[in-house]
Amino acid sequence: MADKSTIGNYFEDFTTGLEIEHSVPRTVTEGDQSLYIALTADRYPLHCDAEFARSLGFQRETVNDLLVFHTVFGKSVPDISLNAVANLGYADVRFGVPVYVGDTISAHSTILGRRESSSGGTGVVWVHTTGRNQRGDEVLSFIRWVLVNRREPDVATGVDDAPQTPANVAPEALVVPSQLDLTNFNATITGGRAWWDDYEPGERIHHIEGVAIEEAEHQMAARLYQNTARAHFNAHALKGTRFGRRVIYGGHVISVARALSFNGLENVVRILAFNAGTHSNPTFAGDTLFAWTDVIEKIDLGRPDAGALRLRLVGVKNADPATEEQSFRVTGDNGRERYHENVVLDLDYTVLIPKAR
Amino acid sequence: MADKSTIGNYFEDFTTGLEIEHSVPRTVTEGDQSLYIALTADRYPLHCDAEFARSLGFQRETVNDLLVFHTVFGKSVPDISLNAVANLGYADVRFGVPVYVGDTISAHSTILGRRESSSGGTGVVWVHTTGRNQRGDEVLSFIRWVLVNRREPDVATGVDDAPQTPANVAPEALVVPSQLDLTNFNATITGGRAWWDDYEPGERIHHIEGVAIEEAEHQMAARLYQNTARAHFNAHALKGTRFGRRVIYGGHVISVARALSFNGLENVVRILAFNAGTHSNPTFAGDTLFAWTDVIEKIDLGRPDAGALRLRLVGVKNADPATEEQSFRVTGDNGRERYHENVVLDLDYTVLIPKAR
Amino acid sequence: MADKSTIGNYFEDFTTGLEIEHSVPRTVTEGDQSLYIALTADRYPLHCDAEFARSLGFQRETVNDLLVFHTVFGKSVPDISLNAVANLGYADVRFGVPVYVGDTISAHSTILGRRESSSGGTGVVWVHTTGRNQRGDEVLSFIRWVLVNRREPDVATGVDDAPQTPANVAPEALVVPSQLDLTNFNATITGGRAWWDDYEPGERIHHIEGVAIEEAEHQMAARLYQNTARAHFNAHALKGTRFGRRVIYGGHVISVARALSFNGLENVVRILAFNAGTHSNPTFAGDTLFAWTDVIEKIDLGRPDAGALRLRLVGVKNADPATEEQSFRVTGDNGRERYHENVVLDLDYTVLIPKAR
Repeated sequence: MADKSTIGNYFEDFTTGLEIEHSVPRTVTEGDQSLYIALTADRYPLHCDAEFARSLGFQRETVNDLLVFHTVFGKSVPDISLNAVANLGYADVRFGVPVYVGDTISAHSTILGRRESSSGGTGVVWVHTTGRNQRGDEVLSFIRWVLVNRREPDVATGVDDAPQTPANVAPEALVVPSQLDLTNFNATITGGRAWWDDYEPGERIHHIEGVAIEEAEHQMAARLYQNTARAHFNAHALKGTRFGRRVIYGGHVISVARALSFNGLENVVRILAFNAGTHSNPTFAGDTLFAWTDVIEKIDLGRPDAGALRLRLVGVKNADPATEEQSFRVTGDNGRERYHENVVLDLDYTVLIPKAR
Repeated sequence: MADKSTIGNYFEDFTTGLEIEHSVPRTVTEGDQSLYIALTADRYPLHCDAEFARSLGFQRETVNDLLVFHTVFGKSVPDISLNAVANLGYADVRFGVPVYVGDTISAHSTILGRRESSSGGTGVVWVHTTGRNQRGDEVLSFIRWVLVNRREPDVATGVDDAPQTPANVAPEALVVPSQLDLTNFNATITGGRAWWDDYEPGERIHHIEGVAIEEAEHQMAARLYQNTARAHFNAHALKGTRFGRRVIYGGHVISVARALSFNGLENVVRILAFNAGTHSNPTFAGDTLFAWTDVIEKIDLGRPDAGALRLRLVGVKNADPATEEQSFRVTGDNGRERYHENVVLDLDYTVLIPKAR
Repeated sequence: MADKSTIGNYFEDFTTGLEIEHSVPRTVTEGDQSLYIALTADRYPLHCDAEFARSLGFQRETVNDLLVFHTVFGKSVPDISLNAVANLGYADVRFGVPVYVGDTISAHSTILGRRESSSGGTGVVWVHTTGRNQRGDEVLSFIRWVLVNRREPDVATGVDDAPQTPANVAPEALVVPSQLDLTNFNATITGGRAWWDDYEPGERIHHIEGVAIEEAEHQMAARLYQNTARAHFNAHALKGTRFGRRVIYGGHVISVARALSFNGLENVVRILAFNAGTHSNPTFAGDTLFAWTDVIEKIDLGRPDAGALRLRLVGVKNADPATEEQSFRVTGDNGRERYHENVVLDLDYTVLIPKAR
């Protein structure tokens, strides 16, 4: 019988339309919630204050939206991106029904399309992944595209059926939890002073604090999500690679930046969507992360109690953009614009926030 | 609208009598309990053995007294000490009703008084903070005083209404949990051989073991308590400061020293009070912590089953006081006495311990 | 009264037949389960997927067999191996009834025999340790032998009553959980493609991935198990010793290697036994761990639904045996065979795995 271990899929293995049921569903526990807080510094009270959660109509604290994201993403790694060269982007990321401790999350993917790269023996694969709870309710769905190696780098496949991805999640696709009741929303609990009405497009919020990340922390985070991607763990193999060291799971960078964003977005109730996301530069252990938010758009959901904000969350390493000059994009020697090397995250996402009463 | 993020309060913001309801109450979970053990090495069985806890009249394991302390303390940081120069001391720290997994802890503070420092653009603020569970029962109250920056360092305020703080928590204020029943206390579970009767004032107990602390550990601890103080996390900003690096949250030092103290104080049931506490020197990642206990006083609570011990818990870094010469206080070049530079903690506290049967 | 702290037992203290009830039983929580995953990368679904566990007849996820092992082992450390020179080997390790979150594990040991070493002021002690839940059911029993210091190194004791230890756990002693029902075993959940029938003695499975270990991680693991052995924590005291630094708890190495083994052994349901185990070289922070499995023997348990596999799990540091030449044993300058210096674990163990349907 052939070798029983699996080494992940190559570009040639991803045929458009292929369906993959990912293995090892995961029951979320109180331990995951605590580790998420200890690893990211998250303080959004819906996820750590059972009384506040109940006051909004939920059974108890809900699982952090990003913990759900990382769990579903992690499930997909052994099949999709175990040996990925890079995780290139996200689109149409929709957060569904709330997840509670005790729920079991499973993940399923469909290959949407592929494009062979012109060089490097690689190709890009577009994948639609869905996470569901044990009742089959959708808790998350997203598209990501990822640069993967070809099994036979020298044999051109000519494959090019890359899909169109939406520029943003349509407002009508945003899921406001049906049980949400904002009648008793108490801003003393959140510490927030600003409502949907108070944010204006063009406004920038510096989140002030900075947090260093250690090897043990990002490894524990990725392992918690059972994300097995080599780039985060295999220090021995990485010695000979471009960076020569472990790269922090991009999702951990999102979580840390999002946790920093609490200072200035305290009343946000949940993440509704990612419209687009880019890990613009790698983050390494020892880096200190900072974040700012640009308000892009106010979306009126047609309800009196809450609206949506489309935000750009920018993560910056080793420079405090609140006090130091920090470019977002720069022009390289080749005349092309690129992200400044300190900018590690550019996340266009949409959140739910109460309106002023 | 003004910048939506907050940068913490300055000396001028703390008016005597000011009441602050701290944001983000926290529901304690099983995950917090496990992380507390994994980060501190705590072994007191009331907090990790449900059967032992039930044998003493409790519903199940109670939350470690110090985890309650750190949680309440952490809640107060964004309002009180986000940019504190130093946490100077504690007084009148009283532990109240036991906390269980599932309880939600909120925190409230009152400004007791202030004193402008003669130099440095700073001032000292005295704060009384109370933590309560979701039923409003007091789980903790304490006074701390903290050195904070002035918003306008050059404008003297002349403020000087520093309060008197008690030298110790009065015996009648010590809270013995009402449900405690020591009839079935089983010292085989604790491994303890000594009772209230066996300890004598003047006695010193060396706790033998030493534990190194890593950056990831103290950051995870402080984040678990949602303590956002810059000094523990922002490696980038700290490069230009006096120590040039992250300082370990003093509360983590208390927890590690207290966990070490199990070896020699195994039968202690709970912490009743801190009478006074000083973080006498900073602790940094890589330091190995040791601890000894001096028995200060035996307090008879007027009950046949248990008494209180007033103890001095001394934390020492990078020297094993059980085997190496280690001064507690030394005389500096200026002729004034100060703590030896290895001494990082001087905690005068009171515990409950059964009497011999 | 004598010093109240304990410094552990010496060779002379271990009389054959001595019974020791270890202190501080431990209630396993959801937090322990999450930390175990975050620290080891374990993915075996019986321990992280409640739905899968229920489909096999269990109440919910069971506690990882190795987490049970470490917990029982940790309880024994203060009495058996606080100051051990080395943990030499394991035999007759039997896993009993499944453990669930909420169960309280206590540990008891019996001294089986001793042999004074010819030099070095040490001796070997054989210990039989049993772990039980709060109902008294056996969850684990094992023999280990450990090299300990003599209290009086210069006074020969002449003690030599070393016991015989079995070469392997007898098939009839293997405990298949009574509630196990494999009728609905779903390999889509595990991702496994191979059954008991598919493995052949002599077959080698490379587990492909490698994982670096950090100081914070192994310390958190050992503390989670309340294992207080000095070698894992006391960086200050270890400076002057042979390795000059902290050594990773061997049990953590077993856990990491076992977690790696999921890739190729996905359908394994539980560990039934360790037949023999050796920590052949120390592992230090910064090392990257790899693992392979050799199939030693197929054991037919006389049931149609599942059989046992006897496996050799080999842990290797800082070399990827799937892609690099890696010796298992080498001949030293003295002509004697020993483990290659990269080989850190040689574990002969037995697992339960479904038969093909």
